[in-house]
Amino acid sequence: MTLQAASGLSREEWANRFAAVRGRTEALCESLEIDDFQVQSTIEVSPPKWHLAHVTWFFETFLLNEFAHNYRPFHPRFKYLFNSYYQTVGRFHPRPERSVLSRPTVAEIFSYREYVNHEMTRLIRNLGAEPWPEFASCLELGLHHEQQHQELLLMDIKHNFAANPLRPAYHEAPTADHAASVPLDWIDYAGGVHEIGHDGDGFAFDNETPRHQVLLQDYRLASRPVTNGEFMEFVRGGGYSDSRYWLSDGWALIQQRGWQAPLYWERDNGGWLEMTLGGVRPLRSEEPVCHVSFYEADAYARWAGKRLPNEVELEVAAGAQPVDGNFVEAGLMHPRPAQGADDRQWYGDVWEWTSSSYGPYPGFHALAGSLGEYNGKFMCNQMVLRGGCCVTPQSHMRASYRNFFYPADRWPFTGIRLAADA
Amino acid sequence: MTLQAASGLSREEWANRFAAVRGRTEALCESLEIDDFQVQSTIEVSPPKWHLAHVTWFFETFLLNEFAHNYRPFHPRFKYLFNSYYQTVGRFHPRPERSVLSRPTVAEIFSYREYVNHEMTRLIRNLGAEPWPEFASCLELGLHHEQQHQELLLMDIKHNFAANPLRPAYHEAPTADHAASVPLDWIDYAGGVHEIGHDGDGFAFDNETPRHQVLLQDYRLASRPVTNGEFMEFVRGGGYSDSRYWLSDGWALIQQRGWQAPLYWERDNGGWLEMTLGGVRPLRSEEPVCHVSFYEADAYARWAGKRLPNEVELEVAAGAQPVDGNFVEAGLMHPRPAQGADDRQWYGDVWEWTSSSYGPYPGFHALAGSLGEYNGKFMCNQMVLRGGCCVTPQSHMRASYRNFFYPADRWPFTGIRLAADA
Amino acid sequence: MTLQAASGLSREEWANRFAAVRGRTEALCESLEIDDFQVQSTIEVSPPKWHLAHVTWFFETFLLNEFAHNYRPFHPRFKYLFNSYYQTVGRFHPRPERSVLSRPTVAEIFSYREYVNHEMTRLIRNLGAEPWPEFASCLELGLHHEQQHQELLLMDIKHNFAANPLRPAYHEAPTADHAASVPLDWIDYAGGVHEIGHDGDGFAFDNETPRHQVLLQDYRLASRPVTNGEFMEFVRGGGYSDSRYWLSDGWALIQQRGWQAPLYWERDNGGWLEMTLGGVRPLRSEEPVCHVSFYEADAYARWAGKRLPNEVELEVAAGAQPVDGNFVEAGLMHPRPAQGADDRQWYGDVWEWTSSSYGPYPGFHALAGSLGEYNGKFMCNQMVLRGGCCVTPQSHMRASYRNFFYPADRWPFTGIRLAADA
Amino acid sequence: MTLQAASGLSREEWANRFAAVRGRTEALCESLEIDDFQVQSTIEVSPPKWHLAHVTWFFETFLLNEFAHNYRPFHPRFKYLFNSYYQTVGRFHPRPERSVLSRPTVAEIFSYREYVNHEMTRLIRNLGAEPWPEFASCLELGLHHEQQHQELLLMDIKHNFAANPLRPAYHEAPTADHAASVPLDWIDYAGGVHEIGHDGDGFAFDNETPRHQVLLQDYRLASRPVTNGEFMEFVRGGGYSDSRYWLSDGWALIQQRGWQAPLYWERDNGGWLEMTLGGVRPLRSEEPVCHVSFYEADAYARWAGKRLPNEVELEVAAGAQPVDGNFVEAGLMHPRPAQGADDRQWYGDVWEWTSSSYGPYPGFHALAGSLGEYNGKFMCNQMVLRGGCCVTPQSHMRASYRNFFYPADRWPFTGIRLAADA
Repeated sequence: MTLQAASGLSREEWANRFAAVRGRTEALCESLEIDDFQVQSTIEVSPPKWHLAHVTWFFETFLLNEFAHNYRPFHPRFKYLFNSYYQTVGRFHPRPERSVLSRPTVAEIFSYREYVNHEMTRLIRNLGAEPWPEFASCLELGLHHEQQHQELLLMDIKHNFAANPLRPAYHEAPTADHAASVPLDWIDYAGGVHEIGHDGDGFAFDNETPRHQVLLQDYRLASRPVTNGEFMEFVRGGGYSDSRYWLSDGWALIQQRGWQAPLYWERDNGGWLEMTLGGVRPLRSEEPVCHVSFYEADAYARWAGKRLPNEVELEVAAGAQPVDGNFVEAGLMHPRPAQGADDRQWYGDVWEWTSSSYGPYPGFHALAGSLGEYNGKFMCNQMVLRGGCCVTPQSHMRASYRNFFYPADRWPFTGIRLAADA
Repeated sequence: MTLQAASGLSREEWANRFAAVRGRTEALCESLEIDDFQVQSTIEVSPPKWHLAHVTWFFETFLLNEFAHNYRPFHPRFKYLFNSYYQTVGRFHPRPERSVLSRPTVAEIFSYREYVNHEMTRLIRNLGAEPWPEFASCLELGLHHEQQHQELLLMDIKHNFAANPLRPAYHEAPTADHAASVPLDWIDYAGGVHEIGHDGDGFAFDNETPRHQVLLQDYRLASRPVTNGEFMEFVRGGGYSDSRYWLSDGWALIQQRGWQAPLYWERDNGGWLEMTLGGVRPLRSEEPVCHVSFYEADAYARWAGKRLPNEVELEVAAGAQPVDGNFVEAGLMHPRPAQGADDRQWYGDVWEWTSSSYGPYPGFHALAGSLGEYNGKFMCNQMVLRGGCCVTPQSHMRASYRNFFYPADRWPFTGIRLAADA
Repeated sequence: MTLQAASGLSREEWANRFAAVRGRTEALCESLEIDDFQVQSTIEVSPPKWHLAHVTWFFETFLLNEFAHNYRPFHPRFKYLFNSYYQTVGRFHPRPERSVLSRPTVAEIFSYREYVNHEMTRLIRNLGAEPWPEFASCLELGLHHEQQHQELLLMDIKHNFAANPLRPAYHEAPTADHAASVPLDWIDYAGGVHEIGHDGDGFAFDNETPRHQVLLQDYRLASRPVTNGEFMEFVRGGGYSDSRYWLSDGWALIQQRGWQAPLYWERDNGGWLEMTLGGVRPLRSEEPVCHVSFYEADAYARWAGKRLPNEVELEVAAGAQPVDGNFVEAGLMHPRPAQGADDRQWYGDVWEWTSSSYGPYPGFHALAGSLGEYNGKFMCNQMVLRGGCCVTPQSHMRASYRNFFYPADRWPFTGIRLAADA
Repeated sequence: MTLQAASGLSREEWANRFAAVRGRTEALCESLEIDDFQVQSTIEVSPPKWHLAHVTWFFETFLLNEFAHNYRPFHPRFKYLFNSYYQTVGRFHPRPERSVLSRPTVAEIFSYREYVNHEMTRLIRNLGAEPWPEFASCLELGLHHEQQHQELLLMDIKHNFAANPLRPAYHEAPTADHAASVPLDWIDYAGGVHEIGHDGDGFAFDNETPRHQVLLQDYRLASRPVTNGEFMEFVRGGGYSDSRYWLSDGWALIQQRGWQAPLYWERDNGGWLEMTLGGVRPLRSEEPVCHVSFYEADAYARWAGKRLPNEVELEVAAGAQPVDGNFVEAGLMHPRPAQGADDRQWYGDVWEWTSSSYGPYPGFHALAGSLGEYNGKFMCNQMVLRGGCCVTPQSHMRASYRNFFYPADRWPFTGIRLAADA
């Protein structure tokens, strides 16, 4: 497939949108010390400075190099250093060694951003009408790509700070009101033939297409995600040491890694603490459980006598709802309890693991060229997640959005919504 | 779910069927030297003697211990040694160390088999009517379990012998006629709502249930599997060194392992040889390609401008066809070229990789108790294969049968059937 | 250097000696089942059948191929399969995969031995006088090489059987009288200039040469090796969990491997058992402690306020003593308590770790050609042990003998003799 | 042993010396960007900021905590973060994770240094006479410890910068005159009884004591270290692919790591470049070869028909010579060619690998208490090096100085001096 024609913004509106997204990335880094920009606390994580450079490389490679006359790259080796995984673009620096790159310095990377911003803005304003549609499509992709990295940046900073025995705080978290727990209800959905996938209005990644029909059986969904308090019962009840609840690969994994609770939980004199982007604080039972792997989500559901929903069930349920909730713009950067019995939390707070393996929709075609590496080549061994989370930009989310991670991953803001057969 | 009541055989017919399956396993070992029984050439493989004991342990654990009055196990430690992965049955000997078990000797394991055979036969004849239906269900499961291990035995022997620089032959393969290649055709199938899954007649594993409806789009399937000759074009054309054809995990894997051809292909002075259960011989271009991983199957399909079928598409296509083909009973133990334009090879020859991740059907429930560990706990990270192969017992196969392996596995007799959108 | 001219035996005496050593190897295998011949329970261990073939390969490669006119190797691939580490002889089968070699079978390896025995015997009788001296030197080396593998065979069988949960016994151990413990005395030795190294009479490996002078300070040696009872005090006193006693590399190792006692000790209801070649039995406090690594020996000595002797100190002390003790010929195959206050146990029972890193003596030259790989290339990272043990052939031992193992190794029959400054 | 009473400086002289050493460490960091302080390019390397903090922790732990009344540590967690390996002081942060410590920031670590400097200076001036001698001993050890880390800092920065594809330069290297090669001569030394070890004047580490007699045979030493040009002949002559020259462990290592030249050599269009602290530049044949492992040094010597010297031979030869040469104070930070036929380069330029395994001298006793972990616990698996190098502080060196590294290490400035039997 080719990227869809981007929406009908004026050149100046594009320039503003470009500036807004780019500026937002830098704003997210304001509380960091220069020292913080280079930490890679595990292989899946990238140093903040690498994120800053990589999203810039994306614009340089797929837009400036392609569309700008006589564009001169900022630095000849950045092509090698900041390519993430685009094999067709050329060789690239090995992912596990990103923390070695003290040069370019943070200051130089900010200069790189400024240089590319300047060139991009000029190009947005001056590019001829003929190449414009294709350019605008790539531009829109580049902005969504940068928004994805805004979320990764926050996930990775949280992991980096949690790996430091000093447990620094990224921000001063807003004071939360003490919230009462909202009881769990069940909502019934009728089966039959439904349509899912992107419907053609606005931007979508290739993996959300084509829109197509699917046949569902009747099903039920929980009215809100599983809370820390509910998950605690599983922990206290020996859920992590009873093989009956676990997929075979999951059971092997928790033995090997010694997992006994979600990622950022810490025991403390009989109670529990939780590391957050605001530092370590007591675990709150009414908040959605977060930072569980697919295996833990699946084991919890089996323990609870339920199951995980598949991605179709969630899209059908959430598709008709407005895309609002606790996103990064709220500034909490942490999942929030349901704000009442009507707060379904379809969007924001925590990514919801589904039972769906990430694969192509019927009739799927990847983008042509190097951008075809964006999504399609990961369609194996990963599970789909839906709905966005508290560090996702709200404008980045939509009902058909398919996120995907390996079943062992739990450094994203991942949670659980239960499902059941009707 | 509970196991379905087994079909209405008489006690004597059951005893005969038990004897036949058990005897068949031993017959498959006739050409082995005692030395051959203990090799574990890689962690996925089990030594032949371990297979012989494990299938016997299954009858001892789930039938004799449960249904025979005062049954006395053959050896108190066999429970530990020959449990494969049933966590709920107790701790077990680590899989990677199976080649260490020189004791019990091969002779002792044959005595174990004889002892259990004797006790089982007595129980089949004498068990009361009340427990019989549940017993018969478990018995049937035990026999299918043993048939699965007959296939594993041959897969594993092939791997063991291929790992030996002397490349011994397991049997003297029948002389093959020189076969002409059969051209590849395409068969059209109509979409719409179809039913798949076991329909309730005869035995099936829990993972084939419940039968349910699925919605398909129109599609096409190749008239026969991909041949060595066709796959050779991919190899010669640089398919293994062009990242565009590969899933990301597959690309990483082939770099790491240095794969440049299917598992048992060997270069020889500009030509190619192939290790078979009959020893090493020149590669035959008209035979179905075999021993490719899911990644290689998927890459080949992408190179060919096609895709892999999903498991529904294959079941719909093959469901109406008789289950015959080149199975283990034919004695070839190697895939055979299509025997003419009408030979679709839906069954036998090679297991066909599908694009379907192995998961539960809608409404699936695992068996109760320890036997619930049989299938359900592997429903993650694996891909479904369909149709059986040249080392599968014919009576073990049916249209709804779902085999599953990790996408990197290629020591099973795995091949490729192409599919396309209509 | 070249090998020393072997001692003045007649051809027939050589033939008899050859037959005796070769026969002894096979006698050691009499109690094994065919199944036992192929186990490789860890990478350092070789399967018994591999030992049987490798020592035969040695005669084939360095004697028959070199000296026999028109010698035809038994099998063209054995050169590849049974070379251990002689890089200059050619490529060889990877050590970790020796358990894969079900072929050649045990029976074929015995045929191989018979074939080579026959050819060797003919050559011993008929070789011309001119090449004889060099041949006899290599022959003598080959016989000592085979004796080394007799010891390895027993070490490896013990490890293999201990890795089997059934804990089979290799032999029926002679009943031991209950022995009283012999108190530990100290013997004083005067420093000054001493000579060590092989003095030129009889066979020696190249690493024992040249004989040379060394300067010693006054020192003391324990009158016998450390016993199980003494070592038990270290274990019970928390020796394995107090870093002060340990070399840094040793401390890291015992954390990583979870070592808390010598290799074959097993806790049993508050008491201790020990795996022996005669099976598992209660630990006997009066026996020399065995199967400790260098790190454990060194930590024990530091805990005891002593040190390990260096190899010079041991050779000076033991050099004047007759080479007798509890060797393999005694049939115990297990260390024996001191048989009275005068039983110094300089030889046999347990190899004694020294503080000497294995290196070349001043003026050392390795053998010319491939046999130069015999000893010299291992002169790094290993520690010298002295005195032989209960599975060493007595005729293989002498005062200047230098054995060597990595400091982490403990599957040899290794023990501890304490030393102190005067 | 206890530390020797330090030399008779006045309090003010001690304060000045303390200030000088501490200031020197910071001066070495002047050319670094903040980004550079946190890189750990391999597990053996520590981030510069960690070095800065660790040497400060040493003064805090062993001097301020022990001798200063009511000393209040700068930060309660630094005890955990900046302990390197002193098990007896308490648990410590895992070495491989040092690059994760973005906090404390570089600025905070400089504050830490300032705080400790201030407290130390006060203590030096005000400590009572009674504890002074012990304090002064520890102070002297702390200063030598910091000098060791000055060298490590430069070694590690070089490794970090070489791991960066941009290959930054640490400093602007002085322009070197083109030097002519100096021919290699041989110097004869007489054997007999010699004395080595520290003689009691001035500071020495415990591992240099006690001074003792050793017996040497006549020997010869090369008049200067091996040059790049000489080593190049070994490389070009296939030295890295001929097993005959290599110790067994070394041969395995170079296969596994793919080594084909010294660490910082790079092929460039048929020629060779070398990474230096001044950046990448053409390899100069007349300079001493540097950054070779013990295995490479040993293989080179064997190829050359010579051997490596042992540590006694070097100490006897160099002991009578003045300790001068190309040390860090020269500012080159790179080995320099011999400055004429009389320039023996006994000191400075490159550390010279010896054939001596690092072990205790006869009668050695480690320091009492935690400082006993300084040297003694590493006396296994490492080789002794002698003479200092171009990044060693000159005042840190002496004839009896014993440096030690694992035989595989080659990121120190290590070179080769040949020896031979007389």
